[in-house]
Amino acid sequence: MIPNNELLFVERSGGYGTILVADRILYDEQSEYQRITVFENSVVGRALALDNMFNVSTHMEAFYHEPMAHLPLALNRGARRVLIIGGGDFGVASHVLKHPRIEEVTMCELDGLVLDVARTYFPEWARAESDPRFELVIGDGTAFVQQAAENRFDVAVIDSTDVYEPAQALMQPQFYAALRRALAPEGILIQLGVDMSYYRDAWKALVPNLARSFTHWKPVFVPIPFYFTGPWGLILASRTEASLDPGRIEQSFFDSIPNLQTLTATRVRGWFDLPPVYARFFESLR
Amino acid sequence: MIPNNELLFVERSGGYGTILVADRILYDEQSEYQRITVFENSVVGRALALDNMFNVSTHMEAFYHEPMAHLPLALNRGARRVLIIGGGDFGVASHVLKHPRIEEVTMCELDGLVLDVARTYFPEWARAESDPRFELVIGDGTAFVQQAAENRFDVAVIDSTDVYEPAQALMQPQFYAALRRALAPEGILIQLGVDMSYYRDAWKALVPNLARSFTHWKPVFVPIPFYFTGPWGLILASRTEASLDPGRIEQSFFDSIPNLQTLTATRVRGWFDLPPVYARFFESLR
Repeated sequence: MIPNNELLFVERSGGYGTILVADRILYDEQSEYQRITVFENSVVGRALALDNMFNVSTHMEAFYHEPMAHLPLALNRGARRVLIIGGGDFGVASHVLKHPRIEEVTMCELDGLVLDVARTYFPEWARAESDPRFELVIGDGTAFVQQAAENRFDVAVIDSTDVYEPAQALMQPQFYAALRRALAPEGILIQLGVDMSYYRDAWKALVPNLARSFTHWKPVFVPIPFYFTGPWGLILASRTEASLDPGRIEQSFFDSIPNLQTLTATRVRGWFDLPPVYARFFESLR
Repeated sequence: MIPNNELLFVERSGGYGTILVADRILYDEQSEYQRITVFENSVVGRALALDNMFNVSTHMEAFYHEPMAHLPLALNRGARRVLIIGGGDFGVASHVLKHPRIEEVTMCELDGLVLDVARTYFPEWARAESDPRFELVIGDGTAFVQQAAENRFDVAVIDSTDVYEPAQALMQPQFYAALRRALAPEGILIQLGVDMSYYRDAWKALVPNLARSFTHWKPVFVPIPFYFTGPWGLILASRTEASLDPGRIEQSFFDSIPNLQTLTATRVRGWFDLPPVYARFFESLR
């Protein structure tokens, strides 16, 4: 027999799961909040796992970070001040800062150890920190938003761990109410949701809470290779209907972004049209 | 200890893999060509596996069958005669036959046992057989195409197992040359490709062979939940450039399809715009 032994990250939920072989563990520590692991994988590159859950990696990061960073900015061409809740790998920040018009990026990350890990193992993303427009807050995102000045931000990116459990606080009515206050009237929120094929219960919990504060919301169906089941759900919300109009999305905006990997205007407009079977589900939540 | 024993389908390729729990095996036989397994899974429903590889299931079939069936018909509104190579689960055929304008569907499946399995375990799809417009050929798709009359079909759907290995014959120059002859000048071919994040070598092998016979070809990037890595690649080809123009795709076409689950015109047009990182890869193959 030829031995075939290996170290596996196995993400399982009910009857489905994904596997990533850990060729080499570079880091593995328990922070105050979560287990943080960095490993090398032959397919996805250098990967970050939080509580044994695949988060993001060097080879596929653009498929996740680019939509989170650029989608709200494509809709709100006047945005200057961006808030990131979570995002401790600096990935979203590094993409937002590609836009010269952005004047301020405030990132509020709960877990200081994630920041240190990113600085060591994902220096390309952590470089964002040295941009003079970038401000770091280490602390609780819900508390930060509560005390933020009214109309303080044009865009808020909620780049947390999955909302169905670890990031519960970021899907509560109080959080959304505070965020509404902290966002300008034309402001846009984008939040990592969950898969739409599977985690219906998380959407059922999240959407009514969000809808109490944001009259207008649109889930988008975004293919993210290597995410659980493949296509993932993000959700956009605003007080202003026009802010979420995909007709605002122009190719010239994407053409202006250096080294863009995954987005075109036509692709992104397509994400606003949910598969009819999912559209019916979300209509049932209105 | 609480026991937690289970029967798993594990698809592994290099450092990545997916898991489906087999709650109950309904069928498991070796045919002349492949191992055929039908099992129940709590997430994807009743599933078909060929040689231990997840093929399709009752809960997600529309995400695969609808693009394969309706995408070429959305581009070629005059199509009347459809050839399906493979497709032994009858899924693609059942979706094609939803269009009253379709006059003939010829399905050429190599493995007669797959047909029997579909009749027993996927009767909703196998019902296609009783449609008077449907004709079944059991045999080798390459031989069938070689002897087909010139301009015999308007659309060809190559619904095989994955092209990177088991269905090698369906990506050879001789096959594409015969298919070109069997298709009308405005005819369209759609073929199941492979994932674009991972299986680059299969695309490097397939595209030049296809391009020898079909001057015009367009890969499309289609999110298929539960397929390996998530977003999957299909490829369209034609002798006529206009046949592949996504501007031809109209919502009224999709509105006419009963019980459509996954498609809208805007979504489908978005698939024609590849993520720029993949567009660059495919440009390198031209």
